[in-house]
This record gives sequence, C-alpha cells and structure tokens, in this order.
Amino acid sequence: MSAAPCGFEEDGRRCVLRSPLAMPHASTFLWNRRMLLQLDCRGYATAQFMQPEPAKYAHAPALEARTFMQPEQPIYAHHPGRFCYLKDEQDGQLFSAPHAPVNRRPDTFAFSVGAGDVAWTVCCGGVEVRMSVSLPADDVAELWTIRVRNRSGRARRLSLYPYFPVGYMSWMNQSGGYRPDLGAIVCSSVTPYQKVDDWFRQRDFLDRTVLLHDREPAAWEANQAAFEGEGGLAAPDAISGRERLAGGDALYETPTAVLQYPLALAPGAEESFRFVFAPARDDAGVAALRERYLAGNGFADAVTAQAARLAGGRGCIEVQTPDPWFDAFINHWLPRQVYYHGDSNRLTTDPQTRNYLQDHMGMAYIDPRVARASLLHALSQQEPGGAMPDGILLAEGAQLKYINQVPHTDHCVWLPVFLQAYLDETGDLAVLEAGVTDREGVQATVAARIDQAMRWLLDQRDPRGLSYIAQGDWCDPMNMVGWKGRGVSGWLSLASAHALQLWSGICERAGRDAQAVEFSDGAAAFNAAVNQRLWDGDWYARGITDDDVVFGSRVDAEGRIYLNPQSWALLSGAADADRRQRLLAAVEQELVSPWGVAMLGPPYTGMREDVGRLTQKFPGSAENGAIYNHAAAFWMHALYAVGESDRAWQTLRAMLSGPDGDDCIRRGQLPVFVPNYYRGAWRLHPRTAGRSSQLFNTGTAAWMYRCTVESLFGLRGDGDGLRIAPQLPSHWSRARVVRRFRGAGFEVEIERESGLAQARVEVDGQPVADGRIAPVEAGRHYQVRVRLPEAAGAA
Amino acid sequence: MSAAPCGFEEDGRRCVLRSPLAMPHASTFLWNRRMLLQLDCRGYATAQFMQPEPAKYAHAPALEARTFMQPEQPIYAHHPGRFCYLKDEQDGQLFSAPHAPVNRRPDTFAFSVGAGDVAWTVCCGGVEVRMSVSLPADDVAELWTIRVRNRSGRARRLSLYPYFPVGYMSWMNQSGGYRPDLGAIVCSSVTPYQKVDDWFRQRDFLDRTVLLHDREPAAWEANQAAFEGEGGLAAPDAISGRERLAGGDALYETPTAVLQYPLALAPGAEESFRFVFAPARDDAGVAALRERYLAGNGFADAVTAQAARLAGGRGCIEVQTPDPWFDAFINHWLPRQVYYHGDSNRLTTDPQTRNYLQDHMGMAYIDPRVARASLLHALSQQEPGGAMPDGILLAEGAQLKYINQVPHTDHCVWLPVFLQAYLDETGDLAVLEAGVTDREGVQATVAARIDQAMRWLLDQRDPRGLSYIAQGDWCDPMNMVGWKGRGVSGWLSLASAHALQLWSGICERAGRDAQAVEFSDGAAAFNAAVNQRLWDGDWYARGITDDDVVFGSRVDAEGRIYLNPQSWALLSGAADADRRQRLLAAVEQELVSPWGVAMLGPPYTGMREDVGRLTQKFPGSAENGAIYNHAAAFWMHALYAVGESDRAWQTLRAMLSGPDGDDCIRRGQLPVFVPNYYRGAWRLHPRTAGRSSQLFNTGTAAWMYRCTVESLFGLRGDGDGLRIAPQLPSHWSRARVVRRFRGAGFEVEIERESGLAQARVEVDGQPVADGRIAPVEAGRHYQVRVRLPEAAGAA
Repeated sequence: MSAAPCGFEEDGRRCVLRSPLAMPHASTFLWNRRMLLQLDCRGYATAQFMQPEPAKYAHAPALEARTFMQPEQPIYAHHPGRFCYLKDEQDGQLFSAPHAPVNRRPDTFAFSVGAGDVAWTVCCGGVEVRMSVSLPADDVAELWTIRVRNRSGRARRLSLYPYFPVGYMSWMNQSGGYRPDLGAIVCSSVTPYQKVDDWFRQRDFLDRTVLLHDREPAAWEANQAAFEGEGGLAAPDAISGRERLAGGDALYETPTAVLQYPLALAPGAEESFRFVFAPARDDAGVAALRERYLAGNGFADAVTAQAARLAGGRGCIEVQTPDPWFDAFINHWLPRQVYYHGDSNRLTTDPQTRNYLQDHMGMAYIDPRVARASLLHALSQQEPGGAMPDGILLAEGAQLKYINQVPHTDHCVWLPVFLQAYLDETGDLAVLEAGVTDREGVQATVAARIDQAMRWLLDQRDPRGLSYIAQGDWCDPMNMVGWKGRGVSGWLSLASAHALQLWSGICERAGRDAQAVEFSDGAAAFNAAVNQRLWDGDWYARGITDDDVVFGSRVDAEGRIYLNPQSWALLSGAADADRRQRLLAAVEQELVSPWGVAMLGPPYTGMREDVGRLTQKFPGSAENGAIYNHAAAFWMHALYAVGESDRAWQTLRAMLSGPDGDDCIRRGQLPVFVPNYYRGAWRLHPRTAGRSSQLFNTGTAAWMYRCTVESLFGLRGDGDGLRIAPQLPSHWSRARVVRRFRGAGFEVEIERESGLAQARVEVDGQPVADGRIAPVEAGRHYQVRVRLPEAAGAA
Repeated sequence: MSAAPCGFEEDGRRCVLRSPLAMPHASTFLWNRRMLLQLDCRGYATAQFMQPEPAKYAHAPALEARTFMQPEQPIYAHHPGRFCYLKDEQDGQLFSAPHAPVNRRPDTFAFSVGAGDVAWTVCCGGVEVRMSVSLPADDVAELWTIRVRNRSGRARRLSLYPYFPVGYMSWMNQSGGYRPDLGAIVCSSVTPYQKVDDWFRQRDFLDRTVLLHDREPAAWEANQAAFEGEGGLAAPDAISGRERLAGGDALYETPTAVLQYPLALAPGAEESFRFVFAPARDDAGVAALRERYLAGNGFADAVTAQAARLAGGRGCIEVQTPDPWFDAFINHWLPRQVYYHGDSNRLTTDPQTRNYLQDHMGMAYIDPRVARASLLHALSQQEPGGAMPDGILLAEGAQLKYINQVPHTDHCVWLPVFLQAYLDETGDLAVLEAGVTDREGVQATVAARIDQAMRWLLDQRDPRGLSYIAQGDWCDPMNMVGWKGRGVSGWLSLASAHALQLWSGICERAGRDAQAVEFSDGAAAFNAAVNQRLWDGDWYARGITDDDVVFGSRVDAEGRIYLNPQSWALLSGAADADRRQRLLAAVEQELVSPWGVAMLGPPYTGMREDVGRLTQKFPGSAENGAIYNHAAAFWMHALYAVGESDRAWQTLRAMLSGPDGDDCIRRGQLPVFVPNYYRGAWRLHPRTAGRSSQLFNTGTAAWMYRCTVESLFGLRGDGDGLRIAPQLPSHWSRARVVRRFRGAGFEVEIERESGLAQARVEVDGQPVADGRIAPVEAGRHYQVRVRLPEAAGAA
C-alpha cells in the first residue's frame, strides 16, 4: 500500500490534501439552502444560487449553456475560481494560491476540507498564504479570509492581489469598476433575454457580482483583458509589468475583480484580510452585504450560525471499526452528504421524483420531519390516475425541465421504498392516514394514494405481465427500448414486485389486510412473469424491446449483463437459491472491478437504436458501464438482504477511496463524498478506470447510509423496536457504534467470539433472544453487546 | 495623421496588419455556402457550419450556449483557434504563430487578408512561419498550409507543433486519438441531447473533428490536459518538458489535435506542410476528406474553385478617387461583404425578413437573379392577411428562433424598398407579374402581394393614423413601447409612408394607376399624422408608448433624439424645408461623432420600462446609442436623397476606418468590412468610443454599396436608362468609375470645373441634357464625362 496524498485529521472532521499535483481535480463543496459552492484544490470553483432557478455570479469566459450538473467538468485556465497572486516586490517573483493560475510548485501545500469551511495553506519561497471560505447559513455570499505570513526569517516587501474572476456575464450589458463608496469592485450585468415575459421574471435578479473588502486596497483592476495583457493569467501584465494595478474599468468588456495590497512584513509577521464575494441586486444590496458581514462581528457570527445549522445535519450513528477512513466517512462526511441532498434538494426546482424520494429516504436518518413533509409534498403532485410525475416542483412557477420532459415509468416504485425506511426509522405509522390534497383538489390519505400508485404499476403491464418502460425507467437514458409503446423493463417489473411487497407488508402492519393480499399477489405475478420471460440461464435480462428483442442477455456482445435486474431479483425474491448463486457468480465474473461493481458490461461502444441514448454515452462513463454507485448501492442493499455480508461490504467499501495512495490518485477524489460514478470499462480503457466523476449529487448517499446503519451494523427499526443484527465483514473482529434512535441512545459493542454458533445480543447485561429491543423508550440509554460467531475462514 | 499599423496591398486586394499588438482583435472572415470561418490576427477563430442549423467543430473549453452571433466576443486563452508552436531544439526557446498562445513578441509579423484566403507570416529568432488557410467552394473544411523557413543564416534544429484545439465537445461522449490508418487526429463526440426526436435529427451530424496531415508526424497528442500539464498553454509540458509528444488519447476528456514535426533546416531552407481541419461523420467521411484534398491536386484545385466562385461576387463598379482606402474598400471589400450576405444568408436558416430583403437588395448589384428569387421566396411566406412573417425559413424543418419569436411590425416596409433598388438596377418590371404561391396554396402576383402588404401597413394604424409597434419595429429590442397593444412607432409610420410612395411610383410606372393613387394617398396620410403628433420643435420623436407618452423628444434626459425618424422623414418628405434644417442641425448637435452618427442620444443608462430591452443594453453598444451603421446608412441615404452630399459623405466615410493610425487602433478593426456598429457614448465612455463590434453581419453593407453606386457616383438605373448625377463630396475634384449595368460598360470620368453653374454630362463626346442615358444597350461600351461645378467654399 502506498502513502496517500490525503488523509483525515481532527478525528475525521477534516480531510487534508498535501499536494496540488497528485489529485488535481480533488474537490469539496459548501452549501446552504440558497447556494452551492464547489471548490477544487487548485482554486477553481463552481458556484450557483437559486433565483429561483440556478444562476451564476462567476461565469466562464464564454457564454455558457444552461444545463444540469455535469460529471468530470473540464478545468481550463479561465475557469471560474478564487485566487490570489503574491508578488515579491524585491525580486519580482510571483506565485499564486491555492495553486492556479501561476501553478508554481509550492514548498508546502494543504487543501483542508471541513464540513462548513475550506482552507488552503500554501507556502512558497518563505511566504505562507492561508485562504479560507465559509458560507452564511441562509444568504448568498462567500466569506473569505486571506492571511499572509512571513515565514522566511527576513523582512519582506510583497504585494497581495486577490483575484476573483467574474467572466463573461452577458451580451446585453456587462461592466465593472471600483466603487470606493461601497468598498467593493462591482461588476454589473443584465441577464440576457429577448422575450418581454422574461423581463418580469428577471427584473429582480441579482445581476451584480461584487468583491467587498474590509481593508482598503492600494489599487485595483476591474478589466480582465487589461489585467492579463500579453502575459496572460500565468504572468499578468498588470502584476508583472507594473508597480500598481491601473484602476481600470470594464465597459461592455469582460469584468474582473482584482485588488492590490502592498505589504511590508517583518519576519514572522502576518496580515489578514476579509472579503465577501457575492451577487447583489443594486447599491443597497451591496451596502447590505457590507453591513451584514464586514461590520461588527458579522463575519464570525455568520460562520457560527452556519456551523450550528450544519450540526443539525449530523447522522444517527458514530462508529469505530478497524477501518479509520470508513469511520471518518460514516461519522462525518456521509451524513453531511445525505443532509445536503435533503436540505438543498440538489439546488433544483424540479428534482426527479425518484431522486426526491430517495434523498428524503436518507433524510429519515437525519431529520425525519423533513422526510415526512417531503413525502406529503410529493404525493400532492400525484396525477389523477395514480402515476407520479417525472419531477416534483418545489418553487412557484417552476417547470419540469431537461430529463423531466421525458416520460419515465418507475416513479411510483419509490414510494414504498421510501416508506419502509421512514417507518422503520420513525415508527410513524400514522403518516398513512395523513390527508393529501392534489392539484385537482382531491383529498386522499397517504395510504390511499400509495394504493393508487401501486395499482398504476400493476396497470402498466403488457400482456406478458411485464412493466412498460416508455422512454426510460430508473435508467434515464434507456430511452428507446419502449418509445414505440411496447417495450418492457425487466428491472422495473422486479422493482414493482419489491415495491408491492414492501407496501403489502406495511398494509399488513396497518391492519389493511385486503390491500396486503392484493399487493402481495401483484408482486408474485410480477416475479412469475420475469422468471418466465427474462431468466437467461445465468442472470436476468434487462428487458424486451419494442420489437420483441430480449436484451441484457448472453446473446449480446455489449450490454450483456445489467446489474439492476440482478439486485432487484434478490430483493423481490424472484431468484430462487439456484438462480441466486448463478447470478452472484455472473456479477462477480462480469461486473466486479477493483473500483466497485459496474452497472452493465461490456459497455456499449456505439448506438444501439433499440436501447437508446445510454449506448451513446462514452464507454465506462455514467450509465454506460461506469461503477455507477447508485446501482451499486442497490446491489449492496440486495446483498445484505440475502445475507451476503462480505460481498456487500466489498461493494460498500469500494464506493470510498483510500487509504491506499494509488487508489486515491486513480480515483482523484477526496473521500469526503461518494460520487455518482467511478469510471468503469477497465478492460477497454484501463487508463481511466476508477476515476471519479466528482459529482456529489447521487442517490447513493442515502442508500449507503441506510445500509451502513441498518445492515452493516444491523441497527434497524422494526415496529416499536430496534432490531439488532450486524453483518460485519468477516475480517472485522469488532466494532463499536453509538446509535441514536427515536430519542433513545444505544451504545453498541460488537465483537466476534470463537465457538459461537449464532449471534448473541445483550442489552444492559441481559440477553435478548431475538435481537429485538422493544419497545424503545425515548430518553433511555441502552448498553448493547453483540457477540458474533467467528467468520468461516476469517483470520 | 499617424501611420496606420495596417494597409492595403495588391491594388487593394489584400489588407495587411503588421503588428499583433496594435489591433489585437482585428479579424476577417472566409465563407462558403455551408460554413463560415472568422479569424483574428492572433490565430483565434470562430467557425460554424450548417447541418442544417449552425454547428461547431471547434468548441470553447466549457459547454457553450447556442446563440446568435454576438458583437465584441471575448477572447481568452482557451478560445478556439488555429496555432502552431515552434521550439528550438537546441536552446528550448518557444514561440507560437500567429501570436497566441505564447504571445512572444515577433521580429516581424504580417496578418494578410485576401478575399478567399488568410495568411500570416511571422518571424521570431530567425525562424519564419507562414500559415495560410482557404476554404473549398462547397464543402465544410479548412485547408491549411504551414511553411517553416530558416532565415537565421545558421543551421537550425526545430520542432513544429501544429495545435488545433477542439475544446469541450460534449458531455455525452467525447474522445480523441491518432489514427495512423486515416492519417489524422480524430476527435469524436455525440452532440448532447435528451429527447428521442433529437436522435433522428442528429444521427447524421458530423460529430467528429479531424486534423488530417499530408506528412506523417513524428509524434502527436490528442489529450488537452496532458498537452498542457502544469505549464499551461504558454509553455505546455508536452512541448517544454519532453522531446516528443507522448501520443496520448482523450477518453471522455477534452480532446485536442497536436502534431510534432522535427525539422533540421539549413540556412535558407524551408519545409511545407498541408493540413485539413474539418468535421466528419465517420471513418469514410475522414477518408473522403483525405482523398478529396490531400491526394493529387485536390488542395490547389479547391483553392482555385473557391477563387472562381468568389469572382462571381464582384461588384458593379470600380472606382478611383482621392481616397485610396475608400477605393480599395469599394472595389474589393464592400462588394465581397454584400455578396457574403446574399450568398450565405448570414448562415442562418431563418434570417429576419428585413435582413433578408435588404441583404438581397444588395445582391441586386452583384447577382440580380439571386435577388429576384429571394423576393419570390420571401413572398411565398407572406401571411394570408398580407403581413410578412418575422423571419424567412430557408431549410426544411427550420423554425423561427430567437428574436423571430418576438412580433415585429416593420417587415412589409422592406418589400418596396427592395423592389425600388432591384428595378432600378435591372429594369425587370416583369417581376411584378410573376406568380407566387403561398403556404395556403393561394397564388397571386408579386404586385398583388405587395398591394396586400401595403394595405396591411395601412391597416395597422391607430386612431391617430400612426403605426402600431407591437414588440418592435426595425429596432428589435424596442419591445415595450407597444407590447400592451397601443403604442405606436413614429419611425414605422414614416417608413410606411416612404414604402407606400415607392410602391405608388412603381405602380405608376407599371400602369397600375388606381393603386398608385391609393398608396400615394396612404403615404400622405402617414406623413400628416406624424407631422401632427410627433414633431417636437427641432426633430421628430420616436413614438408614443402604450400609456400615451411621446418619447425620443426634448423632454427626455436619455434617448432624447433617435436618428431613424429624422432619416425617414427626409425620405418620406414629411419634413418641409424648415423642419429639414432643424432636424439636420439637431442630428449634427446631438448624434454626430468622429466615428459616425449615433442611433440615439444620449444613451440610456438604465431600464426604461415603457421603451424596453433596448434601454438595458450597455450605453453606447448596439441599439443603445452606438454608431449603429445600419441606421447611419439610412441617414446617409436620406442625406443623398435631399442633396446633402457633404454630410452624406461624412456619414459614409465614417463607416470605414483609416488611413489615420489612431483611428485604426481605436476602432480595432481592419477596413475589410463594415461592422454592425462602432461604440458610441463618446461623452459618457470616451475610452471605448469608436471601437468596432467586429460583427460583419449587417444590413449596412447593401445600403453602403447602393449609396456609393447610385448617389455618391450617381450612376443609378432609371426605367430603361442610366441616370448620371454624381454627388461627390465638395473636397474631391475628380473621380473615375467603371460601371457595369445591364450588360453594358460605362467608363465615367468625373471632375470639377470652375465656372460651371450645373453638372454637365457627355456620353461618347455628346452632351446628354438630363444626364440620363436611355435606352442602355447591352454589350455597348460608353465613355462618360461628367463635369461638376466647383463646390462653394471648396479648395
């Protein structure tokens, strides 16, 4: 194992990368409900805020397309970012922090990522620069501190130049200039439009981008081209060629925000500066930012308030295992990511219904009230026929956009999936009787609405009893299997079976016996149809096209096997013991890689017109055969469901990089979030296999958290109790977990004991025969000891 | 007068810029009917081709918005371009040609622009690089030649690296690699989409970008990030840090095209290389490009064919005046630009109707058959009520896009405007009886359709007799004067009057007496209404808003006076002699600048909600008070119409930069096209006043050519004859013109003679009393001598 360029500090609360070269795209993100700031280790940044649709205040150098968040976004010199240049006034030497744009190799470097802040400490030629940023709890602003310290042991004359590029704001109107009255560089624009209706939508937009300072600069530049001159970003003329910035403005020219602070630093001395980088509507808005953050304790107070807000997003367990990176991730970073999803709804006004429900399934472990409200909100947009819409609208005037304009057929499935987790965690069976009024004004209970949704699934079957796929199911770009109206989805048929089973079980617990039988029968019918039509000898095929071609089967050279049907055949019980063993072996053989389990294999290398857009994606990227973690999470969940603990653990742990250095470097991502994918296609494109998408929006997070809590550590709610049944990997001999559950606390010690035939659970020293503690008493503290048998063949 | 950094060569056929620093954005463009290539002096490039909508094969580094052509496009390091690096293998020194990305100051530099080619000759440290490019006549491909010559007097070991960046092609699928079998770097992509319909629209897209070579390279690189490394574009690691390019590929990474040719050059020796840079669909398409251009004489043949095609675009006059820059522009560059518009229709599938008709008005002087066909095509899309649509669809499946989705009310005006010029130039009165079938299948003659269009204009009047403006007239962004349905346009009322007069005159000539009277009366009514409602004491106001507020008048602090109503009041005859003098003085006082006459003044500095989007544009840019040359051209035309020859000349000449060096540098554009605007707001923003938009799509070109031919040199068709009435500026004592007209040739000598009271015209030695030569005999050569009186006060 090689040494990792990154590691955890402060008991896992911070992750620190010690080189700007090893993992150049390593990144993290900060957010509040109104904005998102993604930062990479070199200072490149992507920020967006809601007004109410996502908007930017720092732009690319060319007019950018408005699009959804993309994986593996390319970085280039003029990509938006937050930088500062440091010039030695004596010898003219230049470096920049964090690293770009000068890219001078630092003496020391640290990119230190916390839950609510990011800090870089960079030392070059004896000058140490520390840049750090936090967001306020509920405002669109970046709060920056830049500190320069002389570590060279001799007096230094320097100039510090914070450089916050603003980019190409607008073809209608853009400008920039220094405003001494506001203490800021103010860049103004008009969001481009052509239709009169847009004026009324946009008139209150925050079309200015400002860099406010707490200390008056000696000089400034607001004109990007004048700043760069012939030297470009690596050696801007305005810095290399002049003593002072020229004080230029941008007049329908690309603006920028650069300030200059000449410093004379004795050995050991340091100077500190604070800045606010934010959008604003007008002078009053700029002045308000100053008043709020640069007067009194505003800056520090905002940081404190945001920290408090984030503390509300802590998870329901703290763990201690033989894997410290895993511990750090589970204790701090994964619940943070789960909270991010539920808190921000991915900063979109129309999250996909399946994402919304799964994100809030995760929220059940963080803040169940939010999860509950989200279920009710989603159901309020149920269509009269029982179908769930493609996206859930969150804002006044929001519309279904992008992929939500393409009809998908799986959205109802996620209602029972959500509910199972929510009810297990909360015991809130009363939610079933909550009333929900839809857009037509029809009132119905949650239970009645889910009945309808399940009947819609049952209704959308073809004569073979399989689910129509229309233009996609969970797999968005599988858009041409059934676009003519006949193609069916094997996965969706199995997922429907599982959803119906879950709902049947909930109905049973709620005393709705007729429905329990109805939906249990429905599930069986789905399973039977899949077993009849789609079992291919070693695995389940993915579906049948409009033209009656079974695909995702052994006859296919590409896309031979898809992971999802296997996972959900385990969950739905479609696979009997023999089929289970066969499909486990097939997945092992065809899909498991060192970086996790791929979604399909082999990846498609060209368009397959009866499968669709999926097959046009780059082989090994995204749905076309990546280690698509959301699908891997279903597999993990299914493996735990059938007791395949070691395989499940391998799948789980592969979602997280490290601690091996080569693994970190190959994935290129810090272990502070699970990405939506790692590159697959390890046979076809070994160079890029394992590389992270760097995209932190993913349904994976909720599943990873759920499986860790409920399956790996086996601490799952069950009716009025907590069921304790850990499935530790066989090479772990012990683990400790603190579990918060319905107001009670559980301190759980798990260890393996030789000679045990089966697990034994003791609570407060008393054995619990079935491992179920019930009823759980809020406020009580439970000491739980779990003894597990030695694993067969384990050390 | 300071020396200009640029000048004409080869009798005006080439324009050469001798510095990469003086006018960094100076550019030119090449085109054929399928593609457009805009190149600046530093090598940055914007290319598009039609499939059938505009598409790109070299992209920005981030996902770009799809938009219409923008003025003053920002350049940045990773902007698309065509470059080569030259490395001295002995000392490692690096430079790039044309200038970027290294930006090393060259010893000599020439950016030489011709009608069908662009060539740079750059010498750095004794190494001369010549890059040149042409397009084929009817194919999407760039044909590049790069020649390296050793001018240092000593043997040199060098490496040449052609660098043709490809940019961020697609989030769905992008890659790049070297294909020895095709002799090319091939970058592949899938144009991103989400809806199944788009697959069928896009399946045949040319989604590859290829760089084909004629000489096998020693090495290559197809991965942008690997190429740059830490050194960035100014000193790429792949060049500075290695002997040979690494042969890398791009796998869902930003691709690029870089080749390496090691050269050992004796003193005076040179090596030459040819490349084809183009989009392609597949291997066969790439192979076809090679076969077509890199086998046999394909390359040279294509250049010859394109030259022949461009020769078909020559104008109808050649001139020799006291102003050699003007001569070069009129003899070569202005007709080229007019031809570009008529030939390419601005590379859009839905040109605005007013642009389409005015562009083809210009085509009447180049290729009248095309102009005629375009009139008939436009009329075939006339709406049943007589209105003309906002845009004319040119391709199967094309749709009205962008501004064409906003209702404008002026399109009918341009029919008689077009026809007057077309008939004067051709005498083709028979066109009036040509039949045109519209989309409803209704057949009607051109004359009947124009009657309908004129009646539609008469119908669209408010109770005051003024024209409703809806969401804009000629001025696209004046979208909120009348969006509630009541506001009226003073300009459109006057333009309607003029159009009706023109049509009335044509009807009269065609023996359609009743219509002649009908439309003449209509014109008079428009003029009367404008005079009653909109004369403001010193000029005509621009209109009256929905809320009954007259604007563009003395009570306004911003937008006090608009140019267009003044121009068209002269053309329509609304202004009597007194008003004419007053408005001339007002324009002189309020709108005339050293760089031409502004479209309005003072520019708006903030949204005026009852005028609209226009007022949000940056002050002095585009319609908000720029020297908007299309409007200035109307003014020029009007000035000639009322005999204001000197003012007209000043307006005309101000559209063209130089020969003063300061003027060239300020405008920043080569005098090879007239741009759509020069920055105005010279009082508010003196630093940027006069700067060119660099946008060569403009209705100005046709008007500038028409006025030069028909008014400045006074060689206008008139019925079956040619009317000769030059309006030379008073400081010109002579000029010579060769005029081609209806198959005849006219050699015209114009000179001033003291003591003359009025102009005298002689043809072949015989005086022509009214200056009208009729009938003109095709095939005949006329010698014309024009003597003009000395101008009052002229030297």
